[in-house]
Amino acid sequence: MDVLVDVKSYMQQVGREARSASRAVARASTGAKNTALLAMAKAVRERRAELLAANAADVEQARVDGLDAAMIDRLTLTEKGVESMAQGLEQVAALPDPVGEITDMKRRPSGIQVGKMRVPIGVVGIIYEARPNVTADAAALCLKSGNAAILRGGKEAIRANQAIAACVREGLKAAGLPESAVQVIETTDREAVGHLITMPEFVDVIVPRGGKGLIERISKDARVPVIKHLDGNCHVYVDDAADPVKALRIVENSKTQRYGTCNTTESLVVARAVAATQLPAIAAMLIAKGVEIRGCEETRKLVPTAKPATEEDYHTEFLAPIIAVKVVAGLDEAIEHITKYSSAHTESIVTENYSHAMRFLREVDSSSVMVNASTRFADGFEYGLGAEIGISTDKFHARGPVGLEGLTSQKWIVLGDGEVRQ
Amino acid sequence: MDVLVDVKSYMQQVGREARSASRAVARASTGAKNTALLAMAKAVRERRAELLAANAADVEQARVDGLDAAMIDRLTLTEKGVESMAQGLEQVAALPDPVGEITDMKRRPSGIQVGKMRVPIGVVGIIYEARPNVTADAAALCLKSGNAAILRGGKEAIRANQAIAACVREGLKAAGLPESAVQVIETTDREAVGHLITMPEFVDVIVPRGGKGLIERISKDARVPVIKHLDGNCHVYVDDAADPVKALRIVENSKTQRYGTCNTTESLVVARAVAATQLPAIAAMLIAKGVEIRGCEETRKLVPTAKPATEEDYHTEFLAPIIAVKVVAGLDEAIEHITKYSSAHTESIVTENYSHAMRFLREVDSSSVMVNASTRFADGFEYGLGAEIGISTDKFHARGPVGLEGLTSQKWIVLGDGEVRQ
Repeated sequence: MDVLVDVKSYMQQVGREARSASRAVARASTGAKNTALLAMAKAVRERRAELLAANAADVEQARVDGLDAAMIDRLTLTEKGVESMAQGLEQVAALPDPVGEITDMKRRPSGIQVGKMRVPIGVVGIIYEARPNVTADAAALCLKSGNAAILRGGKEAIRANQAIAACVREGLKAAGLPESAVQVIETTDREAVGHLITMPEFVDVIVPRGGKGLIERISKDARVPVIKHLDGNCHVYVDDAADPVKALRIVENSKTQRYGTCNTTESLVVARAVAATQLPAIAAMLIAKGVEIRGCEETRKLVPTAKPATEEDYHTEFLAPIIAVKVVAGLDEAIEHITKYSSAHTESIVTENYSHAMRFLREVDSSSVMVNASTRFADGFEYGLGAEIGISTDKFHARGPVGLEGLTSQKWIVLGDGEVRQ
Repeated sequence: MDVLVDVKSYMQQVGREARSASRAVARASTGAKNTALLAMAKAVRERRAELLAANAADVEQARVDGLDAAMIDRLTLTEKGVESMAQGLEQVAALPDPVGEITDMKRRPSGIQVGKMRVPIGVVGIIYEARPNVTADAAALCLKSGNAAILRGGKEAIRANQAIAACVREGLKAAGLPESAVQVIETTDREAVGHLITMPEFVDVIVPRGGKGLIERISKDARVPVIKHLDGNCHVYVDDAADPVKALRIVENSKTQRYGTCNTTESLVVARAVAATQLPAIAAMLIAKGVEIRGCEETRKLVPTAKPATEEDYHTEFLAPIIAVKVVAGLDEAIEHITKYSSAHTESIVTENYSHAMRFLREVDSSSVMVNASTRFADGFEYGLGAEIGISTDKFHARGPVGLEGLTSQKWIVLGDGEVRQ
């Protein structure tokens, strides 16, 4: 790759090969795709030493380059990590094949039967950062959904990613599928990303996996659709008809089960009618777990140790043991507050009131809306998708956790018996 | 509008109002939306004279400006046209409301029930040309699907469009919905389109309705998703197992029922095994109807009056009584030919062979793929969508005829009983 003077030509060549391979992958049988995935898993296990050595070189370079500890942690591949990569490939092989699924067939007055068949999108470009296991995960999901993939990993993981790419190619070859069905970009030149996201003739959709900054940059410059996952500023609303036991349990789990995930609750909204009876116990639980409370004035009267919440706090995805709390008049004000501050990722109402539950479900415009459940459930595995390529905070095409289905489209099919239009 | 010195500020104001109105429309009851649609129909009928006068002024201006006869024909509104506009509004009122529909609920091992609820996309921008009836149609479809709409009609139809906009506002007002839920752009400045398609903060999707040139221009410059409808270079493939009666009837209807529609067949592909027995009769039927045949060498041996087909002919959407014909070895070569030349709109195979039918359905990557049916069926009404905002030749989000459902998305909903994640 050092001789690549022209990154644009290289990327166009990659794009052209992906487009060409996408036809073969789209038509590939479920058996061929699964054979490839299982062969990839085998190759990953067989080449474990090679993968670990490549990763060790990446990690060494990262230390020389002065990358921070968190980054090096994400970059580091262990023996266990290699094994779980292989298992991930096997899990995707075990998922049902979405391609070719026929649904919604209806007979029309003309005599024809009309319905839909699920089809791959074509070529998927995935842009990600340090974690090398994404290379295997993304390759597997794209292949199983019948798409060709162009993977662009982080510069810091280039050696491990290339080693994983070799295993992926070995698997494709074993199944008689074109090796260019999954291509891992070989250059670390930043310019490559700019080309990848502006080749609608070769790439049909981009899935960026990384920080908000990366995703915003890509969305701004892309000339193809982007499945965006921005921030997760999630809310739990404790309604005036909330069961206090459920409320306590759901807030605890939503906020404290893990602090760093996008489906972690960052703001608690409480109906005035139950604030005095329920908020002190909830606050005591949170404080006991080391969570800092930042509240509105009413909250601070009930929770004396709470700090005052700023406007900014209600907008913030803390990803830390901090929670913003707001007391509201009731359901209407709660929905208003959520509409104003939420990032439209996941919100949950705790209530025993049927009409409040239905209004919250209908009126809150987030990718996941829940009744009496922890926001931490917003996840592809918990939803039964089997795997997840990302979580979309967008409304076009796919919303919320995106599994194999989000990497497909549907075409119309018509079964006739010689019918013509009148 | 003459005082609008700053088109950008005007468009941003329109966008802001649309975004704000979109919340009310998204939450509006089916009853309120239908009340608005029926009140719009009433207003259109009551103001018929006004609409016709506004349109007459548009037509007069178009004549002064030297617009061609076809354009003036599309622009002209008749009494019957006004009545069918009112009926169109009533038809949309009669369609089922897609918003809030809950599907696919499944219980998960954790105890939660997970499924999907259909939701509006938000703000839809529609850009169209001469036909003023699109103003009413588009307003109706956007409103029924719970979206706010920004409509930008052709300069030549500005007076009729504004008169229709007044009826739309009257309907919205009668139902207590915000009048800015449907806004018709008041400036004819071309710059307005440039702003409309580059305001992702206010507009969620653009639907251009017009010629390929318009759509390509918009897609190139848009900063929001575009539901594209490019050309319709449709094929009928007469397989070696084709029933000759069905083949003749399907080619006749696909090619000659109407010449100017996007689902009209432009190319005929015939398997060599049946070319000698079936092609002469098909050609005779076409010639008798005045269709010019442009064929490959083999075609010309069987149809002596056929002109030679050029490479360009196979790529062309003629929209005229011209058909390109190609004799192929069989199914594989037919699929290859279609993949190479088709615009991925609609293709049909005529065959009695089950495996050929299934392979064609699976392997042809077009928005509609048919067996033993006329390509002319590729239409929202024929498919039972009730109405059609356009036909998407894209694969992301919506494909083929786009009805109310194509203007919606789905969010995840979770029904729990206090469950938390382990």
